[in-house]
This record gives sequence, C-alpha cells and structure tokens, in this order.
Amino acid sequence: MKESYNGEDVLIKDVEVQGRRVNIKVEGGRFAAIGEEAGGEADVVIEGRGAVALPGLYNTHTHAAMTLLRGYADDMLLQAWLSEKIWPLEAHLTGEDVYWGTQLACLEMIRSGTVGFNDMYFFMDEAARAVDKMGMKAQLAYGFIDLFDEEKREKEIKATEALVSSIQAMNNPGIKAAVGPHAVYTVSEEGLSWCAEFSRQQNIGIHVHLAETEQEVTDCVAKTGVRPTQVLDRCGLLTPRTVAAHCCWLDSDDCALLGDRGVFASHNPTSNMKLAVGRAMPYGLLKERGAGLCLGTDGCSSNNNLDMFEEMKFAALLQKFFWHSPTILPAGEALAMASANGAEALGFKGGRLEVGAPADLVLLDRRAACNTPLYNAVSNAVYACNGGAVTTVLCDGRVLMQDGVVPGEAEVLDGARQAIAGLLERHQASVSE
Amino acid sequence: MKESYNGEDVLIKDVEVQGRRVNIKVEGGRFAAIGEEAGGEADVVIEGRGAVALPGLYNTHTHAAMTLLRGYADDMLLQAWLSEKIWPLEAHLTGEDVYWGTQLACLEMIRSGTVGFNDMYFFMDEAARAVDKMGMKAQLAYGFIDLFDEEKREKEIKATEALVSSIQAMNNPGIKAAVGPHAVYTVSEEGLSWCAEFSRQQNIGIHVHLAETEQEVTDCVAKTGVRPTQVLDRCGLLTPRTVAAHCCWLDSDDCALLGDRGVFASHNPTSNMKLAVGRAMPYGLLKERGAGLCLGTDGCSSNNNLDMFEEMKFAALLQKFFWHSPTILPAGEALAMASANGAEALGFKGGRLEVGAPADLVLLDRRAACNTPLYNAVSNAVYACNGGAVTTVLCDGRVLMQDGVVPGEAEVLDGARQAIAGLLERHQASVSE
Repeated sequence: MKESYNGEDVLIKDVEVQGRRVNIKVEGGRFAAIGEEAGGEADVVIEGRGAVALPGLYNTHTHAAMTLLRGYADDMLLQAWLSEKIWPLEAHLTGEDVYWGTQLACLEMIRSGTVGFNDMYFFMDEAARAVDKMGMKAQLAYGFIDLFDEEKREKEIKATEALVSSIQAMNNPGIKAAVGPHAVYTVSEEGLSWCAEFSRQQNIGIHVHLAETEQEVTDCVAKTGVRPTQVLDRCGLLTPRTVAAHCCWLDSDDCALLGDRGVFASHNPTSNMKLAVGRAMPYGLLKERGAGLCLGTDGCSSNNNLDMFEEMKFAALLQKFFWHSPTILPAGEALAMASANGAEALGFKGGRLEVGAPADLVLLDRRAACNTPLYNAVSNAVYACNGGAVTTVLCDGRVLMQDGVVPGEAEVLDGARQAIAGLLERHQASVSE
Repeated sequence: MKESYNGEDVLIKDVEVQGRRVNIKVEGGRFAAIGEEAGGEADVVIEGRGAVALPGLYNTHTHAAMTLLRGYADDMLLQAWLSEKIWPLEAHLTGEDVYWGTQLACLEMIRSGTVGFNDMYFFMDEAARAVDKMGMKAQLAYGFIDLFDEEKREKEIKATEALVSSIQAMNNPGIKAAVGPHAVYTVSEEGLSWCAEFSRQQNIGIHVHLAETEQEVTDCVAKTGVRPTQVLDRCGLLTPRTVAAHCCWLDSDDCALLGDRGVFASHNPTSNMKLAVGRAMPYGLLKERGAGLCLGTDGCSSNNNLDMFEEMKFAALLQKFFWHSPTILPAGEALAMASANGAEALGFKGGRLEVGAPADLVLLDRRAACNTPLYNAVSNAVYACNGGAVTTVLCDGRVLMQDGVVPGEAEVLDGARQAIAGLLERHQASVSE
C-alpha cells in the first residue's frame, strides 16, 4: 500500500526526545533518522528548540461530527437526554453538516495532537471527504443499527457496502473503511453476523460498542442467555481487527475471551464518568489476559471535547480511583494506549517515534508552565499538560500544524458555524410546525 | 479595608456574557456597569469581540510552591512516594525556592483563569512576596504540624504568629493570613485548639485537611473514640471561616456538622483520583445539609497542574460517576463552586460578574474549537474547554493577562528553572555525601 505522503521531507532541529537533544529527519513520510547526527537537506525545517517531541496520538472511539452538538444538552438522565435533546436535533443533520462537523473535529484533534481516529456515524462518505481534506488518518464506519428489523437490516447492509466502495475508490491509504455494528442491543444477530462476514471478506476493521452499561449486560443475558461478549463472539465479531469501545462491564471470562481473540478494548473514561455508567474498564484484567488496550474520547456530546491529552489523564486517574491502586495505569502506559496501541488497533503502523515508522509526531511547548519543571516528559504530558501545549503536529510526515497554526482553520470554523446555524433553523422550523 | 487596586479603569467592549453582547466597565477595582450602555473613558480598553466573559476563579486548596516538584515522581504507593521521593527533595527547599515556585504557580493559575487561592506550605512569607508581585489574591497559611510533640508545637505556634504579623505588615488587602493546622493525624488536640483560638482572636481563616483517606478516619476513631470532624469540632476549628480540604470520607453526621457550623468543604477530585482515596466527597449530602462547597486542585505533585477549568470537569464527572447520577453537580454548580463560592470561602467578595462586585473576570476565546458551537457558555467552560482557552484575566480590576500575555512571564519561568536546578544540585550533593 502506498504511503499517504505529500512529497516533502522535514527536518526538526534541536528537539528534546526522552531527555536527549536530537534532530529528527523525515523522508518519504517516515522517520529516516533520530539523533544528534540527523540532518541534511529538507523541504521544511522546523525549529525544535523549546519543544518536547512525542508520538502522534490516535483516538480509537469517537463520533466526530457530534462536535456540532457540543454543549447542546448536559447533566440529564440518559433516556431524556437522548430522546428529548440529542435525537431530535440529530434528525436534522445533513451530509453537508457531517462534512463540516467532521472537519471541526479534525481541527480540534490536530490542535490537541491527534493524527488518526476511529469514527462511527452516518453520512460517512462526507466524513471521509473531511478527513481527506484535513490530512489526517482515520478508520470510518457507518453505524449499522437494524433494530432487529429485517427491512432495516437490508438498508444498513447496502449503506455499509456503499461506504466501503466509496472509501476504497478514494485510494487514500490513510483513510480506511470499517464495519460498524453498533451494539448487541441495537443490532440483530443476523446483522452482527453479516458485519463479521463482510469484514472478513474485505479484510477491514470492526468498530463496535461493548458492555458500556450494566443494563446492556443484564438485558442481553435475559434475552439471549449469554453476555454481550459471547454474542459478539458467536457472531464472529471478535477479531484482531476489532475495536470494542467502552468495555466497562466485562467479567473475567469476557476479558479472557477478548484476550484470546486479540481484540482491542478502547477505554473511554471521560464519557463513562459523564454518563455515570458505574464501572471503569477492568484494565488490569484485560492487560493480564493479553487484550489490546487503547483510548478514545467518544463523541462530543458525552465528553465534551476530543483532547486525547485530557483523556490520558482521565484514564490514568479513573483506573487508580476505581481499582483502588495508585500504581495502576502509569503515565507511560497511558501514552502507549493513546499512541502506538491506538495506531495498531486501527491497522496503522504509526504512533511511535522510531526510525522507519510513519512520521506521526507532536511537539509540546517545553516552556509552558505545564512543562516546568521537566523531570519526566511523559509524566508532564499525561498529568500536567492538555492539548493546549501542542504547537506542531506531523501525520505521516505531513505538517498539519506548525507553531500553533493550522492552515485553513478560519474556513473550517466558519463552515462549522454556518452548518450549526442551518441545523438549528431546520430544527426550530420543525418544532414550530 | 482599602481595595487592592492599581488605579486604572478598564473598559471591555462587545463581550458575550450569558448569551448577550455587552460592554463591561471597571472602576476603582469593581464592576461599575455591565450592559450595552456601559462605556465612557477608561485607562485600558480591551476588545471583547470574539470572547466570552466568566467570573474569575478561586482555587481553595493548594500547596502552590509544589509546582517545583511537578512530575518528579508519580504512579507510586503513597508511603513510598512520600518517604522515598517527595520528602527527601522537599527537605532541600529554601525560602527563595518557595518564592519562585509560588510565582510559577501564580503564572500557571493566571494563565488558566484563577485570580485567588488558598495556600498551605512553609516559608509562607516568601509565598506572600510572590503573590504580591504577581498581583493575585490569596489566603496563606503556614502548615502547622506538631506531630504530637510539645517542643515542636511551640515552634509551630511561633511560626504561625510570625507569618500572621508579617502578612498584616504587608497591608495588601488581597493577601490574608490564615492558620493551617495540617490534619488530625499530624497535629495534637492542644495544637488544634491553639489554632482555633488564635484564628478567633485574629479573625482570620482556617485551612485544614479533613477525611482525605479512610485510614485517617479509622485511625482517628481508634485513637480518640470519635471521627476527625468531631475532633476538629471539639477543638473549635469548625467555623464559617474554615476551609476543609478533601472531605472524602464524611458520613451523614459529619456532613450535618459541617453544615451547622457553616464550614466550606473544598472538593479536590483530581488529587483524590490520582491518590486512589477510594471515595468522592459526598456533594449531595453536604449541599443538603447547607455546607459551603468550593473547589481546589491540591498541590502539583498530586494533580499535576493548577488548572481550575480541568478541576471543574473532574468534579462534575467524578460526582456523576461515583454517586451513580448523570444529573448531580451540573455545570452551573461546578462554576459556582470554582468562582463565587470559592471567593466567599476565603473571605473575598469576588468571583461574580455583578455590578458592585470586585472585578474578577476571565475572557475565553469564543473562536476556539472548545467554544464551537456555543449553545451554552457554562457547559463549554466546564466540559469542553480547559485553561488554555483563557485569553485575558482581571483580578480586582487589575489586568493580569491580556490577549495571552502575562507581563514578566519569562522572568518567572527563568527564576523557577534556576530554583529547580539549585534544588536538584543540593539534593544530589546530599545523596552522594
């Protein structure tokens, strides 16, 4: 597969990597050299003095265009929040809205150091267009929801097939299609099995919600006799290409099964806390059983941002608090979840600062208060800084942000604001009808 | 009492307050007018277009100079962390270190929208000098720790008396002295009682740790027969001038007692999660019983920053998660805890955007991604933004930061870096001896 690379070589001079002052050379979209000796000609030279380099981050569970709903409703009971607020507004979303909402999400992610993400929503061909324009990497799934209805299932199958074709036709190796069976409580076993088989045939990823709430587990057991993890397994959805979001209410057998199947569990601590799901993902058990471990923000109506630095802190702290251990999920593991593990979960090779790897990189301002003092850059990144400390971002060697500037930012913000105004107008009109 | 005011009147033009576009006039350090009609001459005119105004924030529990220890050690068991890492380094801190560490803390707080704070540490005359220089407001207490030893108690009494005299001599109404009896497990009842009586005589605040861990409560009951709240009460330390930090392991009688005495409970969710204390402050019960409710970050070695925007989000989310309710501690209450309630807890009048109130104000960039869309500025401030969205800060009408610039920032960062280098040198020298 060809690299998604814009042809420019980059030299970052005098930057701090793991306590050492080095130069970083990027050629053909990959790290060509990292060290004092690295240098030579480059199309783009970036001054790294006063910066700390970290790998670029991967957000493994989100609904990107929900940026348009940020702050529209909070602090409500789940059912009322969905049925009175979120769904009535979402009903008026157009493809154009998703295009602008996804660009707004990309802008926010770039500004906070994320280079790739795992998305599930609708109008996903528009989302793909937005990702392509913004220069990020993503795995995109149409949210497959058949509500146990055969007719609806046929529509979801067609929508999934259409998205996969349309993304394959883009021929952008940084943009991958996935299947997106929503969850066991919204998709029939026939639908789940179709998604599994189609993803196997196409060799594409699977993005699913799993065991987010206790009720999901209880209802599933009452209905099927087995737990959600087992339902997904018997439908063939647990694979090394699978990212299972939330994974809060797993028991020890569930963890063993995810480990055996090589599934990636995407921890979404901020969303889990905001929606009061009552339990934190069993990180220790999943790790022990060999499951993949990565991190995601969830959508903006249950977070309400896409800042993976903040998410690393929430993850490291929620694990400590819920599992009564100040030593669980140390800073280095939180950063690994948010970078290399996340890339691997989405089938990308990036997220690591290593020669030969795709050049996904973040520079943090080391003169910021959150990096003063700088005993340990990883501790500061996870516990002290947030995305606001990010100054420069490279994705597969493309410079998406340099010294705080994202080209095209004003256009994205204006487009998003117009989309929001139109959305509210359509919603108002329907309410007053 | 005279106002801590630098003599300049300020006009903020075209700024958004609670969804309205207004002008804000500041005269004599107070809000003189807020509305479309506000205007006239001013020494400083600030363009408010593209900004949202919120009240300035108050951090009601910190150990400011511990910025110097940020990231020095994390992810360890409490006892090993303290005895192997924090205490050996702290032993080498000088007054000059505390001066620069506190300035670094002030810089970080100003950058993230905080105008006043409640501090407990040592070399507090140096901390006072730092606060005065940085133009913030603070209540400063010497951390009184007698370890149940009479001789040590006499020293702590002298240190407390000396600090109170030295702060009173500064004659800066924005800087107040308080007594700082550390906690029931580090101070004898004689020491606690002396602090209570001295604070009553001097009419100054009380800053104490309360019920942070389960062990504190269990040990206290085993030793004294009563719970920590009752020990503080029988020593006279529960008053409307008291800020009790943490308050995690309170039972319903404790909450009733804090309510009856008019004590302010300072919620410190980030620290509580990082140190895995196992229980969140009973916000609902304390509110029901009429206790004061405010918010604090704790020191930088257990957080690891001083960003009150982040703290509001942690508070609103930890309460929801721990108490199994997506509706508890909504955004508006989180902002009140962090602003007006915090000011009141420290005996200041600020933290409210009202005509006549001291002009404590924060401008947030409304063009930032975290403020796009802007359905609800308070929701965005609590759930989507962090301190990085702050552009301008006024404290008692003094402009401490304007359009991202804090005058003197480079000097503070350089001074802090030199202090850290010296501290590490002295520590190294003592280790190799």
